[in-house]
Amino acid sequence: MSTYQAPLRDMQFVLRELADVEGVAKLPGFEDTTDVLDSILEEAGSFASGVLDPLNKIADKEGCTFVDGKVTTPPGFKDAYKKFADAGWIGLPVPAEYGGQGLPQLLLGPTLEMWNASNIGFANGPLLNQGAIEAIELCGSDDQKKKWIPNLVSGKWTGTMNLTEPQAGSDLAKVRAKAVPEGDHYLITGEKIFITFGEHDMAENIVHLVLARLPDAPEGTKGISMFIVPKILVDDAGKLGEANDVICAGIEHKLGINGNPTCTMKFGEKGKGAIGYLVGEANRGLEYMFIMMNAARFSVGVQGFAVADRAFQSSLAYAKERVQMTDVASRSKESVRIIEHPDVRRMLMWQKANIEAMRALSYVTAASLDFAHKAPDEKVRKEHKAFVELMIPVVKGWCTENSIDLCSNALQIFGGMGYVEETGIAQQYRDVRITTIYEGTTGIQALDLVGRKLVRDMGATATAVMKRMEADAKAAAASENADVKAIGEALLKGIATLAEVSQWLGMNAMGDLRKAFACSVPYLKLWGVVAGGWQMARAAMVCAAKIAGGDKDPFYAAKITTAKFYASHVLSQGAWYKRQIIDGSGDVMTLPEDAYELDRKMAVTA
Amino acid sequence: MSTYQAPLRDMQFVLRELADVEGVAKLPGFEDTTDVLDSILEEAGSFASGVLDPLNKIADKEGCTFVDGKVTTPPGFKDAYKKFADAGWIGLPVPAEYGGQGLPQLLLGPTLEMWNASNIGFANGPLLNQGAIEAIELCGSDDQKKKWIPNLVSGKWTGTMNLTEPQAGSDLAKVRAKAVPEGDHYLITGEKIFITFGEHDMAENIVHLVLARLPDAPEGTKGISMFIVPKILVDDAGKLGEANDVICAGIEHKLGINGNPTCTMKFGEKGKGAIGYLVGEANRGLEYMFIMMNAARFSVGVQGFAVADRAFQSSLAYAKERVQMTDVASRSKESVRIIEHPDVRRMLMWQKANIEAMRALSYVTAASLDFAHKAPDEKVRKEHKAFVELMIPVVKGWCTENSIDLCSNALQIFGGMGYVEETGIAQQYRDVRITTIYEGTTGIQALDLVGRKLVRDMGATATAVMKRMEADAKAAAASENADVKAIGEALLKGIATLAEVSQWLGMNAMGDLRKAFACSVPYLKLWGVVAGGWQMARAAMVCAAKIAGGDKDPFYAAKITTAKFYASHVLSQGAWYKRQIIDGSGDVMTLPEDAYELDRKMAVTA
Repeated sequence: MSTYQAPLRDMQFVLRELADVEGVAKLPGFEDTTDVLDSILEEAGSFASGVLDPLNKIADKEGCTFVDGKVTTPPGFKDAYKKFADAGWIGLPVPAEYGGQGLPQLLLGPTLEMWNASNIGFANGPLLNQGAIEAIELCGSDDQKKKWIPNLVSGKWTGTMNLTEPQAGSDLAKVRAKAVPEGDHYLITGEKIFITFGEHDMAENIVHLVLARLPDAPEGTKGISMFIVPKILVDDAGKLGEANDVICAGIEHKLGINGNPTCTMKFGEKGKGAIGYLVGEANRGLEYMFIMMNAARFSVGVQGFAVADRAFQSSLAYAKERVQMTDVASRSKESVRIIEHPDVRRMLMWQKANIEAMRALSYVTAASLDFAHKAPDEKVRKEHKAFVELMIPVVKGWCTENSIDLCSNALQIFGGMGYVEETGIAQQYRDVRITTIYEGTTGIQALDLVGRKLVRDMGATATAVMKRMEADAKAAAASENADVKAIGEALLKGIATLAEVSQWLGMNAMGDLRKAFACSVPYLKLWGVVAGGWQMARAAMVCAAKIAGGDKDPFYAAKITTAKFYASHVLSQGAWYKRQIIDGSGDVMTLPEDAYELDRKMAVTA
Repeated sequence: MSTYQAPLRDMQFVLRELADVEGVAKLPGFEDTTDVLDSILEEAGSFASGVLDPLNKIADKEGCTFVDGKVTTPPGFKDAYKKFADAGWIGLPVPAEYGGQGLPQLLLGPTLEMWNASNIGFANGPLLNQGAIEAIELCGSDDQKKKWIPNLVSGKWTGTMNLTEPQAGSDLAKVRAKAVPEGDHYLITGEKIFITFGEHDMAENIVHLVLARLPDAPEGTKGISMFIVPKILVDDAGKLGEANDVICAGIEHKLGINGNPTCTMKFGEKGKGAIGYLVGEANRGLEYMFIMMNAARFSVGVQGFAVADRAFQSSLAYAKERVQMTDVASRSKESVRIIEHPDVRRMLMWQKANIEAMRALSYVTAASLDFAHKAPDEKVRKEHKAFVELMIPVVKGWCTENSIDLCSNALQIFGGMGYVEETGIAQQYRDVRITTIYEGTTGIQALDLVGRKLVRDMGATATAVMKRMEADAKAAAASENADVKAIGEALLKGIATLAEVSQWLGMNAMGDLRKAFACSVPYLKLWGVVAGGWQMARAAMVCAAKIAGGDKDPFYAAKITTAKFYASHVLSQGAWYKRQIIDGSGDVMTLPEDAYELDRKMAVTA
């Protein structure tokens, strides 16, 4: 099937018209952003299509192999990683002093999208690498930064995040790996699972960031420290030495993302422990992880719609090509291409509208990450930080949950051919399924949204964001363009629903907490649906103004049509979520645990 | 993980209390039904758990192999098929004169559910076999029946349905395979794809039912005939002779259902054609297919929730076992099993409530199939036939679409472990994905529902069914049991929504057909959601009466609680579908086809 082509026009539009790239370019250090923007989009698009996309299917098919502790990545990965590094993509957001380009987070939106759409298995490498770089940059000593970051940015080495243990998945408080001090370093022992690119053949060294406990550490979340544990020891001059006491014990056979090895790592199997270096202060490891969590969760949200966009493009190409059945509305006996069938068209629009809304909401959130870090005015920084913190669980949770459904839609368009692996679309259905799980399941995101983001400030941030949305919705509803007006009105309804439900939740959170959390996932989705609708309404207003100003670019009319579809098909979900949450939260815990299996044992009937 | 245990208690309840098994047992020929019912459920349950379930995972892992035209099925399949046949399961609904048990279709509900829950790949064999038996029984000559059916029932031979060709998937009018008369038989040439169990090692012969065109046949749907084409020729004495000119050219590498080979079959590759025997009259093949279609579509609907129930059981077992995170509502630092987390509980209830509603609606439809065939009173037969025809696309479309989401929910409960194939839950996520595709995609079901079932009699049948639902809903809403009352009220709202949308669709079907069909799938889902809610309300009323009568069986209270959850969480979807259909149908075809790719090409700025 057709290969991936990055949606550069929509990316440009969202960056310029919705995500305020001009504003971001006024932040200190980001002055070059608008100058390089178009060429970055173009080069990333051609790298994605030219280098990563051709390796996607073979990576899925061949996967990674594990023999005697060594992992071989899929054909072409090693070479692609070198090209990726040489082109400077690893260092995009990394400060120039470490060899990076020092560009804003905002540009991670489109570039991450392109890497993940073209090859999510490959993209998981740089994504985790980025986490390791950030961890050292934000929490490491100056010596550590100088020693480890430049080689991570150049692609000579790669980085990993070693968090999960069998008993410590969502609950990192349960980490058991140990770190015992010995001279200037620590000896690390323990087992970590699900370590992405924990072992591979793409670089000469691997820098593991590992969570472990000191001997005297308190139990729970406040007793976890973070360590740098290299695969091969590095001396002060930066020269590689002996192998550290770290082994890869195996890789997982997964549903998808077969391009990236998912490793079980053992520390201290060979001797008394792997040599590790404490990052930052002892017992603050989990706190450091949380600093990086926004970026990581943002990235996974982007992965969701990136994979969905790839699936959308494939299903669109197939729908334009596959001839089957006659047109429902004509009496002609000629068979038509299936894109002419209303139900196929609905599935295409459903994908397109959702993807564009997710893209817009994600990039807008990324821009706020930049403002939150760099805006000179503290009040501005605070406002953006609050917005980001509210939106991160929404971007992560909504974009990924939504994208599973979208990939399933794309597969459906292929009919029987969709179920055959040869076609390729089944890969996206398998690949995307991980995104609601890693970096915190949707349930964890919803817990964060309701338990921390909504309740913590008594709904102040949520209310402020709803006010901003309402102002835009009112402006749209007052438009002279009939479509924009309808979009604005639908959005106003959606916001009213969200406000009503938020208030209801806030009230209940003070009483029966289980009830408040029972429908936290539908609540998270409601946020996504409405905030996505907000961005689509903003987009529609911009486009209506362009058209009114005489601009003939058909992109603008298409965007308004897509936003209109979003309003009637996607925003309308609010009506369901509201009733589910308000009427149904009390019905979630009612059935006692032991009643779940009463359906099995036969009754004796005379 | 835990193995499958058939939900025998719920099956019993649905058969006796909702699907009128007593009434079915009064139909001519079905008098033994109630006597054998419990033992059939029990034996089928133990066959499913004891024989089929243990082969499910290995069948997925090892799959089928194809070497030199021969297909080897997964380990244990051959032996299991013999046991299945010997136990009489193939012949369950087949008349005694052909060696069957002559039991009602209604019993296919629970038995099919058990075969498919325990091992869908295996179950696809008997399912297609059943289709071939029915085709010959309904349309064949007496000689053909005597010659072919007994060995299909005994398991000595198996049957297949050869419909699909590369250019003829949903659109069977495009079938090109040819049949040229020669003496008392025909010579068949052509290629068929996606043929389930088209070749295998489980039986000594395979009886293919093949759609093909006679030389003088008219184009389109009215020029297709049906032929019996055995793999090995059989003489009049029933002795096997030479191999026919039929070969298996390969098997598909699929997303799931790896237990069953999906074959490409070539007829007439070796010589002038495969010998085939015309079934019934020439040019009526498609018509014959449609006679069997209700049963086949019903079966796939059952497959959907069967696989979902297996996934549900696994996720329930995992949720009861996996310890992670502390309870949201207590201040204890003890970690709890994840079943205690409200969001996990919501996902479990979501699965349970949906599965029970689908089971009830399906079995009730199966009972109507029996009444439609066998009721002595023609008016009763007609009423049931109309109900069946309306419900079949709903059972097929809704149960399968719904079940994809349910299997995804089950996987989500496993967290990271769900993404690892070893756990087994990913298999259900892959397996279930075929069910919205084969035997007519959901789009085809929805086309059938709106274009034929709703419009054909100007909504008369739909209105009659809604009246029946309304009577039950009113009875529930008048209940003294507060939960049943709430369920009845929610159902009344759902029915009102369905009625409003149906009327809207009926009006539009007379005008803009594309608009009427644009949201036919959401309309089908709305039917499923409401009709499922109807059965749950009926169930709740029965249970409330039992409880009021002093019955202490906790099953009854659990059913009411589950029905209440269904009302608030599932029925509430109606509010969304209504707005999507009425507000959104006009937005589906608006975007011109060539505007779909405007998002890609960059605008030149500056």
